[in-house]
Amino acid sequence: MLIDGHPYRSIWEDDHGAVCIIDQRRLPFTVSVERLAGYRDAVIAIRDMHLRGAPLIGAAGAYGAYLAAREYSGLDQADFEAAMGSALAELDAARPTAVNLRWAVERMRKALAGASSPKEAAQATLAEARAIADEDVAICAALGMHGADILKRLAADKGRPLNVLTHCNAGWLATVDHGTVTAAIYEAARRGVRLHVWVDETRPRVQGALTSWELGQNGVPNTVLCDNAGGHLMQRGQVDVVIVGTDRTAANGDVANKIGTYLKALAAHDNGVPFYVALPSPSFDPALPEGLRSIPIEERAQDEVLTIHGQADGKAASLGIYAPGTVAANPGFDVTPARLVTGYITELGVFDAAGLRAGLAGGAHGRA
Amino acid sequence: MLIDGHPYRSIWEDDHGAVCIIDQRRLPFTVSVERLAGYRDAVIAIRDMHLRGAPLIGAAGAYGAYLAAREYSGLDQADFEAAMGSALAELDAARPTAVNLRWAVERMRKALAGASSPKEAAQATLAEARAIADEDVAICAALGMHGADILKRLAADKGRPLNVLTHCNAGWLATVDHGTVTAAIYEAARRGVRLHVWVDETRPRVQGALTSWELGQNGVPNTVLCDNAGGHLMQRGQVDVVIVGTDRTAANGDVANKIGTYLKALAAHDNGVPFYVALPSPSFDPALPEGLRSIPIEERAQDEVLTIHGQADGKAASLGIYAPGTVAANPGFDVTPARLVTGYITELGVFDAAGLRAGLAGGAHGRA
Repeated sequence: MLIDGHPYRSIWEDDHGAVCIIDQRRLPFTVSVERLAGYRDAVIAIRDMHLRGAPLIGAAGAYGAYLAAREYSGLDQADFEAAMGSALAELDAARPTAVNLRWAVERMRKALAGASSPKEAAQATLAEARAIADEDVAICAALGMHGADILKRLAADKGRPLNVLTHCNAGWLATVDHGTVTAAIYEAARRGVRLHVWVDETRPRVQGALTSWELGQNGVPNTVLCDNAGGHLMQRGQVDVVIVGTDRTAANGDVANKIGTYLKALAAHDNGVPFYVALPSPSFDPALPEGLRSIPIEERAQDEVLTIHGQADGKAASLGIYAPGTVAANPGFDVTPARLVTGYITELGVFDAAGLRAGLAGGAHGRA
Repeated sequence: MLIDGHPYRSIWEDDHGAVCIIDQRRLPFTVSVERLAGYRDAVIAIRDMHLRGAPLIGAAGAYGAYLAAREYSGLDQADFEAAMGSALAELDAARPTAVNLRWAVERMRKALAGASSPKEAAQATLAEARAIADEDVAICAALGMHGADILKRLAADKGRPLNVLTHCNAGWLATVDHGTVTAAIYEAARRGVRLHVWVDETRPRVQGALTSWELGQNGVPNTVLCDNAGGHLMQRGQVDVVIVGTDRTAANGDVANKIGTYLKALAAHDNGVPFYVALPSPSFDPALPEGLRSIPIEERAQDEVLTIHGQADGKAASLGIYAPGTVAANPGFDVTPARLVTGYITELGVFDAAGLRAGLAGGAHGRA
């Protein structure tokens, strides 16, 4: 998607053989491109959250494995295998909870196994990293087409811009390109649907600032809101549809997503506002029968609540907003019960909870 | 209530004839007592939000009228009346939307009318200001007794602290003493009920920092939460009761309160958690048949969302959390429909929506 009018992916190769990312810690204030010259740069970028979002973390892990193979390609086969084993373990451990990272490293391991020399392994890992990134782009693009169909239908006869509310950042910055929620929005805008997006702040980490920034960079009018405000807007008829992302969706359609999603689902239900989940199939977990009791919720650091980061006088700054000694709780996610979800927008089509399992198994049953 | 172990009201007279307040702009980081030497200090304190909370604003307006009468008590009667007319108009205009301010200034006008000389007027206004403050304390104390009965009943047989969730600051800092929601909490704690309070952050202005601070100063264990988290805690059975304040409650029981209250009411309803409103009778508006369509909601400045205030390196500081040029919406309040409210805790008893009008007319009908 666009930054200052130029097209970007969130991870790419430059002309000098380096892998590049945008250091997201400095967004939305500064666009800082970081070159990952070697695999250790990739480990640090993943571990210290220079990048975020499960699909992007997976792609970064894959490119990290390629960078390691290239660095070690001068070694003999036995030394190469030992060095790669260690590098993959480091990459794998960079973010302990990211399922996509696990999966990407595993795919790179298989690519390595099929190569007959270190030089061939370097080529094979580059091809596989590119494939992982391209597959993510394709999933998001296809999801966006199905989502845009919904937005176009909802916008018909409105005679004013369609008001979409979203929570957190399920944007292109969390994927390789397009995003999940934003893929639908960008594609609908491309088709000429007039849209306005209400962007939830999403405390504690204020991912709404990323969402607002990327929407603005791509020409989509948007307004940020404190997380408290969405229900009131729905009561007043100022929200036409809610679309959120998901970190993990269970077989019955229960949706784990950023903390606060459940409250917006309740408000949407209470006001007859359709509530959709943008669900790339890798985030669907058919092995998990239900989510409310089964999905473990990460309790994150208190400091994310107690200290806020931003910019003062043009420089990065932080401040405390509570009295010293204040205790905070910080659950990172919540689970929205399937009964509150109108439909699941996937790369294979839009499904209701009952049709989700069959739909993502490749069929066209149970479309919402 | 206590600050550093010493009892305070939020407005009081010192031994030198000055009226004192706590400059709440500096809380929870610094307890700064401000002396209102003359009525213009009171105007500034009200207008620039050195103090906040409808009941406290009313009391400050009343004391401001007394300060004016004292300042002008050396004038002859005609000049005194002219000067007081102008002072009361200034006080009245200090916060355009505070109903309590209107009401307090009107009471002071009547007190002035009954006096036969400027000197007598100064005495009469002092007596009336004291009466207004004392009445507020009495209302909050009585409300607290009824609220504590509820908390005590809910805590019975729990075998662990009762978990109360509240939103915004309906604390003693918003009244002359005790608070409304906190009156129930403080009284229950005094009776030996073991309590723990979940304190909603309450973006944009983070009044949760005030609530957490005053609860801590008065020995009530509490934990702050982002506004997104309460629904998840209710799903997990970690909230036993929600109590919120109100700015204005309609005859049918619809409750206008700080933005975000409605989302917590929905979550309480969805999880079978009792949801109470602490309602001092002056906040009840029997002339308003319903609230959802009739109560105007103030749209406040964008900057409250875009800029956050707190403390860095021991000094007051502010920072921006969104990219320059970001647009924000900032509705200040929302309306919770009466159907989501378990009961209304007033100084005259606890009522359900159906019994509210009769109950506050002085009867004991329709108790919840």
